Amino acid sequence: MAEEEGSVVVRPERLRPLVARIFAAAGPPERDAATVAEVLVEADLRGVESHGTTRVAGYVSMIRRGLLNPRPKVVVLRAAASTAMLEGDRAFGIVVAKRAMEIAMDKAERAGVACVTARNVTHTGMVGFYPMMAARRGLIGVAMNNGPAILPPFGGITPTYATNPIAAAFPSDREEPIVLDMATSVVAGGKLRLALKKGQPIPGSWALDRHGVPTTDPDEAIFHGFMQWAGGYKGFGMATVVEVLGAVLSGGLFGSDVPCMKSFGKEPLVTSAFYLAINPEHFMPLDEFRGRIDRLVRMVKASERARGVDEVFLPGEIEFRNKAERERDGIPLSGVVYAELGGLARELGVPFDLA
Amino acid sequence: MAEEEGSVVVRPERLRPLVARIFAAAGPPERDAATVAEVLVEADLRGVESHGTTRVAGYVSMIRRGLLNPRPKVVVLRAAASTAMLEGDRAFGIVVAKRAMEIAMDKAERAGVACVTARNVTHTGMVGFYPMMAARRGLIGVAMNNGPAILPPFGGITPTYATNPIAAAFPSDREEPIVLDMATSVVAGGKLRLALKKGQPIPGSWALDRHGVPTTDPDEAIFHGFMQWAGGYKGFGMATVVEVLGAVLSGGLFGSDVPCMKSFGKEPLVTSAFYLAINPEHFMPLDEFRGRIDRLVRMVKASERARGVDEVFLPGEIEFRNKAERERDGIPLSGVVYAELGGLARELGVPFDLA
Repeated sequence: MAEEEGSVVVRPERLRPLVARIFAAAGPPERDAATVAEVLVEADLRGVESHGTTRVAGYVSMIRRGLLNPRPKVVVLRAAASTAMLEGDRAFGIVVAKRAMEIAMDKAERAGVACVTARNVTHTGMVGFYPMMAARRGLIGVAMNNGPAILPPFGGITPTYATNPIAAAFPSDREEPIVLDMATSVVAGGKLRLALKKGQPIPGSWALDRHGVPTTDPDEAIFHGFMQWAGGYKGFGMATVVEVLGAVLSGGLFGSDVPCMKSFGKEPLVTSAFYLAINPEHFMPLDEFRGRIDRLVRMVKASERARGVDEVFLPGEIEFRNKAERERDGIPLSGVVYAELGGLARELGVPFDLA
Repeated sequence: MAEEEGSVVVRPERLRPLVARIFAAAGPPERDAATVAEVLVEADLRGVESHGTTRVAGYVSMIRRGLLNPRPKVVVLRAAASTAMLEGDRAFGIVVAKRAMEIAMDKAERAGVACVTARNVTHTGMVGFYPMMAARRGLIGVAMNNGPAILPPFGGITPTYATNPIAAAFPSDREEPIVLDMATSVVAGGKLRLALKKGQPIPGSWALDRHGVPTTDPDEAIFHGFMQWAGGYKGFGMATVVEVLGAVLSGGLFGSDVPCMKSFGKEPLVTSAFYLAINPEHFMPLDEFRGRIDRLVRMVKASERARGVDEVFLPGEIEFRNKAERERDGIPLSGVVYAELGGLARELGVPFDLA
């Protein structure tokens, strides 16, 4: 992965404690601060910068504005052998998401399958992190969450859902795990903003104008229009599944009741989520399952390539490759994020020792 | 729904027993024959003709060719409080799918969540049927299955997955349930064949040519190329989830090991499947959950419409409307299917009394 212009290469093992110390100084217990740092730096390692340490300033801003509760009282409202329901008290979404997946995994190890909901939390970071926890323990993991109402239903123009991401991970043996982590919209908002910055038109399949008609103008799309659903009504359908499992079932806010958010870190960000774990050992020996995943991976990799395509990838494979490179060579942190972290460290009296 | 040219309007309550008698005469026990008839006619009622009684001749052909076992020994290989694993013995997929979802529902009512796999069955018909069984019982239902290797992975040209459908249904109160039922490919193969028949080009987003490059030529797409994934790599990602949960976990054939099928009813059709049920009462009173689904439905319906759009629809809503119309006015059966059913009735000595 080429170093971005204006970026600073930092070591992940230095970035992680710095971010943890910044958060700890901003309010939450040290353990929670370390969890948030772990998940954000993992996103940077995997090349998912949109969900990495670029979020630190926004999270701190949310704490300062009272939009994120750094010392929440997270409550297990109901629990049984295969289910649990958490109330998040506007906590760090990352902290509650990790706990919810841990509960789901513990229950699934015994019962074979378990699902846990979490409501009323803030941003949960890179959604694929939580299924990957399951895959590391030899379990299948699934995660999904709703969020601020910014996309209209297919055929409409009233903001009703978020980009409602869904993620799943499957444990492998010698190959990397399969890790799907996708928004149900065509692209993330960041791609529209990048086109606007470069003064380039966007493909007609990405966004709609204010009237709900496809547009190639990123300005119209960002300031008056909407992102499109991946696969049109199919993406909207999957987003509906996420809205129900993540938010209707969790007792959280859903649909147009979720406050719209125009600026990350300055307005409430309320999400609700659903975590599922399945224990393959209820179906076959774990080694056999892992071997079958490996075999599926090799089938996909063995596909003849379409004209103009260099390599066929499994879901998550590029991100594992990014991670291997960045663990070896360091993370190319954008100059903006580097400066933000420096500023926060100074304000909060935390030693800034990335270099 | 306008009556198709050359179609014959038949009453569902006459079509169902006719189809059941045709199957019963072809080999399976009466109860299984009735189940298959029920699911196929439900598809016709919902306007999903591709999975309706157009399949009868193919199913009978599969029995005659020894590709479908009409008197199978379906075995529960493993079972626990929240999981079960079925071996299908090349049975009617519809019969095993219904049984698998019943097991999942029974377990989920007690445990809160349950999942059941089924392997080595034939075509399971309209995949949304099984989650709808759950919704009728006040449960959340999810179903997915793999099938013959006909689509390449994203970026490839080697057939590796089927169109890997996924379906989910959510129980409502006064509104219709939400029912998603979608292939992970952009469109079904039938739409390509229709364009070919009409001599029309297809949109460039539907299919690929033999080199894996988008094509507008339906002939090239059907005879040498491939369907595209809904949302590109996102549809491929969802199809991978279906391949793992439906087939890797079930111990069934997966990926390119599944025999490719070029002609329905004349070649082996091997699928494996995954059924999940969740009991909302483990999270809140059922009435509250139903009311929340109603509220989500009304939010979506209340969306302002995009320019040129007459109505915003929930997943499954058009199909419920079709069903209400067809229960009242009858099912417009294509002349081809009407003739096929007449021919089969004659061959098998079954009275043909649709009119």
